[in-house]
Amino acid sequence: MSKRLVLSALARFTAKTAGRNMTKAAYAAVAAGVAAMVVLTVAPAYEAAHHWVDAVLWTCLVYFVFEWLVRLRHMAGQGRLSLYALSSSGVVDAIGALAVPAALLAGIEPRTAWLLSILWVLKVVPGIPGLRQLRRVLVLESGPLLSVLVIFLMVVFLASVAEYFLERDVQPATFGSVPAALWWAVVTLTTTGYGDVVPITPLGRMVAALVMISGLGVFGLWTGILATGFAAETRRDNFLKTWETVSKVPFFATLGPAAIADVTHMLRTMDLPARTMIIRKGQQGDCMYFIANGEAEVELPGKKVALGEGAFFGEMALLGNNVRGANVTTTKVTRLLVLDLVDFRLLMARHPDLAETIDAEAQRRAQENK
Amino acid sequence: MSKRLVLSALARFTAKTAGRNMTKAAYAAVAAGVAAMVVLTVAPAYEAAHHWVDAVLWTCLVYFVFEWLVRLRHMAGQGRLSLYALSSSGVVDAIGALAVPAALLAGIEPRTAWLLSILWVLKVVPGIPGLRQLRRVLVLESGPLLSVLVIFLMVVFLASVAEYFLERDVQPATFGSVPAALWWAVVTLTTTGYGDVVPITPLGRMVAALVMISGLGVFGLWTGILATGFAAETRRDNFLKTWETVSKVPFFATLGPAAIADVTHMLRTMDLPARTMIIRKGQQGDCMYFIANGEAEVELPGKKVALGEGAFFGEMALLGNNVRGANVTTTKVTRLLVLDLVDFRLLMARHPDLAETIDAEAQRRAQENK
Amino acid sequence: MSKRLVLSALARFTAKTAGRNMTKAAYAAVAAGVAAMVVLTVAPAYEAAHHWVDAVLWTCLVYFVFEWLVRLRHMAGQGRLSLYALSSSGVVDAIGALAVPAALLAGIEPRTAWLLSILWVLKVVPGIPGLRQLRRVLVLESGPLLSVLVIFLMVVFLASVAEYFLERDVQPATFGSVPAALWWAVVTLTTTGYGDVVPITPLGRMVAALVMISGLGVFGLWTGILATGFAAETRRDNFLKTWETVSKVPFFATLGPAAIADVTHMLRTMDLPARTMIIRKGQQGDCMYFIANGEAEVELPGKKVALGEGAFFGEMALLGNNVRGANVTTTKVTRLLVLDLVDFRLLMARHPDLAETIDAEAQRRAQENK
Amino acid sequence: MSKRLVLSALARFTAKTAGRNMTKAAYAAVAAGVAAMVVLTVAPAYEAAHHWVDAVLWTCLVYFVFEWLVRLRHMAGQGRLSLYALSSSGVVDAIGALAVPAALLAGIEPRTAWLLSILWVLKVVPGIPGLRQLRRVLVLESGPLLSVLVIFLMVVFLASVAEYFLERDVQPATFGSVPAALWWAVVTLTTTGYGDVVPITPLGRMVAALVMISGLGVFGLWTGILATGFAAETRRDNFLKTWETVSKVPFFATLGPAAIADVTHMLRTMDLPARTMIIRKGQQGDCMYFIANGEAEVELPGKKVALGEGAFFGEMALLGNNVRGANVTTTKVTRLLVLDLVDFRLLMARHPDLAETIDAEAQRRAQENK
Repeated sequence: MSKRLVLSALARFTAKTAGRNMTKAAYAAVAAGVAAMVVLTVAPAYEAAHHWVDAVLWTCLVYFVFEWLVRLRHMAGQGRLSLYALSSSGVVDAIGALAVPAALLAGIEPRTAWLLSILWVLKVVPGIPGLRQLRRVLVLESGPLLSVLVIFLMVVFLASVAEYFLERDVQPATFGSVPAALWWAVVTLTTTGYGDVVPITPLGRMVAALVMISGLGVFGLWTGILATGFAAETRRDNFLKTWETVSKVPFFATLGPAAIADVTHMLRTMDLPARTMIIRKGQQGDCMYFIANGEAEVELPGKKVALGEGAFFGEMALLGNNVRGANVTTTKVTRLLVLDLVDFRLLMARHPDLAETIDAEAQRRAQENK
Repeated sequence: MSKRLVLSALARFTAKTAGRNMTKAAYAAVAAGVAAMVVLTVAPAYEAAHHWVDAVLWTCLVYFVFEWLVRLRHMAGQGRLSLYALSSSGVVDAIGALAVPAALLAGIEPRTAWLLSILWVLKVVPGIPGLRQLRRVLVLESGPLLSVLVIFLMVVFLASVAEYFLERDVQPATFGSVPAALWWAVVTLTTTGYGDVVPITPLGRMVAALVMISGLGVFGLWTGILATGFAAETRRDNFLKTWETVSKVPFFATLGPAAIADVTHMLRTMDLPARTMIIRKGQQGDCMYFIANGEAEVELPGKKVALGEGAFFGEMALLGNNVRGANVTTTKVTRLLVLDLVDFRLLMARHPDLAETIDAEAQRRAQENK
Repeated sequence: MSKRLVLSALARFTAKTAGRNMTKAAYAAVAAGVAAMVVLTVAPAYEAAHHWVDAVLWTCLVYFVFEWLVRLRHMAGQGRLSLYALSSSGVVDAIGALAVPAALLAGIEPRTAWLLSILWVLKVVPGIPGLRQLRRVLVLESGPLLSVLVIFLMVVFLASVAEYFLERDVQPATFGSVPAALWWAVVTLTTTGYGDVVPITPLGRMVAALVMISGLGVFGLWTGILATGFAAETRRDNFLKTWETVSKVPFFATLGPAAIADVTHMLRTMDLPARTMIIRKGQQGDCMYFIANGEAEVELPGKKVALGEGAFFGEMALLGNNVRGANVTTTKVTRLLVLDLVDFRLLMARHPDLAETIDAEAQRRAQENK
Repeated sequence: MSKRLVLSALARFTAKTAGRNMTKAAYAAVAAGVAAMVVLTVAPAYEAAHHWVDAVLWTCLVYFVFEWLVRLRHMAGQGRLSLYALSSSGVVDAIGALAVPAALLAGIEPRTAWLLSILWVLKVVPGIPGLRQLRRVLVLESGPLLSVLVIFLMVVFLASVAEYFLERDVQPATFGSVPAALWWAVVTLTTTGYGDVVPITPLGRMVAALVMISGLGVFGLWTGILATGFAAETRRDNFLKTWETVSKVPFFATLGPAAIADVTHMLRTMDLPARTMIIRKGQQGDCMYFIANGEAEVELPGKKVALGEGAFFGEMALLGNNVRGANVTTTKVTRLLVLDLVDFRLLMARHPDLAETIDAEAQRRAQENK
């Protein structure tokens, strides 16, 4: 009987969690858990409220264990158990669920064991927007990045030995060994500069100055590489995201593949929730919109006109008068394609047929609103 | 009677302020007010001149309150009251006018209450050049920027717990709790490195080294993303700004839209006040100018020739002799389109007809000057 | 007799080392040697294990001397002795082999002499991936980089004299001479900020603030220059690397040079070891692959199909269904050309003939798998 | 009689200096002068060698005064006196010549007066390579850069008032007034982080953390803007520099302007001194060279062939065999146009006629060398 309850709970829960990667509940749990763990380490605060802190920690732990089991069961049901268990998110879930208990069972002092709950933050990773993009950049640029890292390490080693040799007699306490000098070198080359270890001999300071300047260089290279990678990646992402949608818009259906590729380079996708105002009457406007899917509503004087998939609006702003003539609001979750004024001009120039279609439509509407 | 005076004052003032976002007077008031507030906090200086300081502060306050009321009245007059009151600048004006009085009425110690006058600097924001551009970049790139921020925070949390675990026994004073360690982590990951909290255990230092290097990474990603966004945004802005103007220059009127788009990519707009020298005789020159609107004056030997909208000059420099042959000065506020030597060459290559027009004109002038 | 042994050893060793720039053994030796040298400087650790440390150091030294001699002999054999001896790697090998012994013979205290073994890390340089690329960027951008450096130095000098003048009376200990102020200036302009030397007079702090802000500027310029250089360099490298391969793929052989240049811009090379899984069944896929050389194996239900040079796979993912239909694994070391979805679309648009070939092939395979 | 001597000296000196902006002598004088000034401030060093130091300083001063007078005279001779006197370099020369004497006459303590000799470094500015380029970037991007600066200042002010409010009671010594807090804010926002002023209250540290993160943001924006500006500027510079030369090379003379613009985008100019080895036999080569002006010499077996303006070499490397077949050396100062392998391929693709010319020439030479 109680088994039935649990099972139904599982069922409901599964339906909720299994789909998306993280539920709002899970995010809340991570936040609460980490916060509680932080409080745990502040003696006075913990004394004051250890009941609450413990309660929160245990609740979160139970939640994550439960979530993990549900997912395992769910995946097992689909015969993808091993696939999930070995996937990064699977491993993260497992760690989140098992690390703390394992530590507690291992007899580690509780307040230390609970520190492992920091690993829960890893559960957030898959949910980070554009993380995939970041990873791709790092992978593609790994070559140069790696070489910069190697150069970084070589500078660190050479500099630290030099400083050790120059400073050891004057400051045996801080430069008494190469490891100590290495600490100095890293702190300096990253331009962190704690100031706990500082060369004082003239020669030592010259070496240090060189290291700092190399630090700027390393920075520069690093950034230069990443900037380059990003530029390429961003172009690629926008293109992919947009292409899917463009090819679905009837308005562009007539175009050949070359033209579509062309258009795709110009459009930007934008996803809006329901009842969001896209255009406010009287505002300045410098872009027009195509509805990829969803629906928008134009508030014309007296009546409201609904625009469905493939419809476009805001083109008036690009044909002379820059001031928006009416409010436009989404009625359901809507994906728009945004065409900036600048690209609009280019597009019109390259594809006169499109220009005509839009002009005609604009005329028609102008008539109507009269 | 006095009412009339105030009203007329209001009228004049409205005419002055309502249009532009900030009057010179307002900028001065912000500067003076903030300066006075700063002095207010320096005990000796304030003792010496508290009359003056108070006078300045109160004057500024009155000014801002007055300005706010005027604007409210003005907008109410146009029936845009709510629109303004809720707009960012409206809110800023309200804060500027009400924050300090509210604090004073709330019985807060005056010298503390006046600190709120720092909020006056917010009035400068709308006047920042290219702020809109900055905002657009941040919005468009918000996705990756956000993910970098999340990564930043994760590193901070993981690192601080690790350091807390490694250092708490050795340095209970500085690493005695995770919040303390968090402070260390932020200071380190941003490569600020105050040096007030520094790991001393070997393991702790290794973790710290990793954090610093990640710091470089975060920097790099951040910059890479922004650099990418900027490149795109700058192109877009120039294009828009120029297109408007180009299409107005008769010289380019003959071109088809494709060619105009082409030209637009090459030209740069430049706005000059009256009586500014554009070209100085005898200088090296590597660009030519088109007058979008306004007027310029060429000082030929003996006579002065006025060039009106659509005229161009400086083309000699691009056709052989690099040295400017005459002074050219603006006679009124003028918007110029600048064409660099490099783009001039491309343009001539792509649009021979333009080349001819310019050559012909150049010939004619050469004749004349003989 | 023993001579024979040595010679055969030499022969074998030569064969192993002479070809590649660094053997795995050499990398290990560098790592071990440097590690040992580091331990050498940590008094307690050295006391504990000085036999081991000395053993490791001497072994590495012998190894490097031996390696150097072998290489000299090998090059002499090919009559390229002087070429090698004077090449950067030749010099590095010589230093690695002779520095420490020279120091020891010169009667320098051993623990100091061994510090020179840090120079062994230089042997790693030639092996750094993408180092050549880095060098090219630095060379091409040397002009602007140099001017930034000059500006950097000028700011340092001007600022330090100013600070010396402003702070010398208040802090004779730290700002007592211009060299001391120079130290402060470098530490500040690189935003390292140790905090060992800090201005305290109001004017001195204003100057310092300016220096810090210039620091950001220097950073920015530096990075901007390098980023620009990198963008260009990366494009160039990929192009070169790919062109070689593309022209070897029969599939593209039919294309004219212009089209090949076009394709080359789109493809990315990827080198894989044997038995690496390229495509996992059920994954999302957004690129297709061409085999430049090597071999891959498709696991179709029931049978395994081998794909040789010039074959392509993964195209299904780009023609409608995004889910990979089968595992593909390399059977030997393989160089692939990767075509991203985005470029695939452009390519199809520009070269319809290619599109047909791929479509046809895709159809055929679809048939087969039925 | 002595007048004659001086005049002739003047004459010779004028001829030497007036042309170029800085003579080697002047650079040496600046270096020596600044060095001496630095020594001047180091008490012990100065005691030891004050005769020398004074001698150097006075010599440099005399030199600069003399140089300035000569230039004034020279310019007066050409009637460009006022133009020079008011030009930046004229002002710098004047300062260099007059600052120290003025200070000495004003009765300032000599060792302080001589500090002004640091202004001599300003004489180096006009000689910085690519400075013009830097300036152009800063001018073109001044808009966004300025707005970032304004944002920077606003963050500084808001943060410092907040910190002052939060920390003044706990640390009256360091956060006792807003100016003090401003110092902290700048040190923190630039991520310099001396550590002399550090918030200790929890809230204060949170504010500080925000400031540091904004610091990264400011960095990022700054760099992003400059990177963008540089990319554009570099393209422009190369294009200009090359165009001049390309149009002079007969080999390209046959091309139409569009093609020249095309070629220009691909070539890179390189200026070499006499007797420099351009190509070393046996090296890997991935570019070919055109001689814009000057002369190069090919060392073929047995004979030496001289190549004059417009000739090209190194093309074999791009047609199959990558190993250089002969040494090539400049015989006089030579400007080369470098064509990278990648661009070579594109060029051949777009302009088959060029391809043929090069092929033919290559064949001919191959024949010859047989």
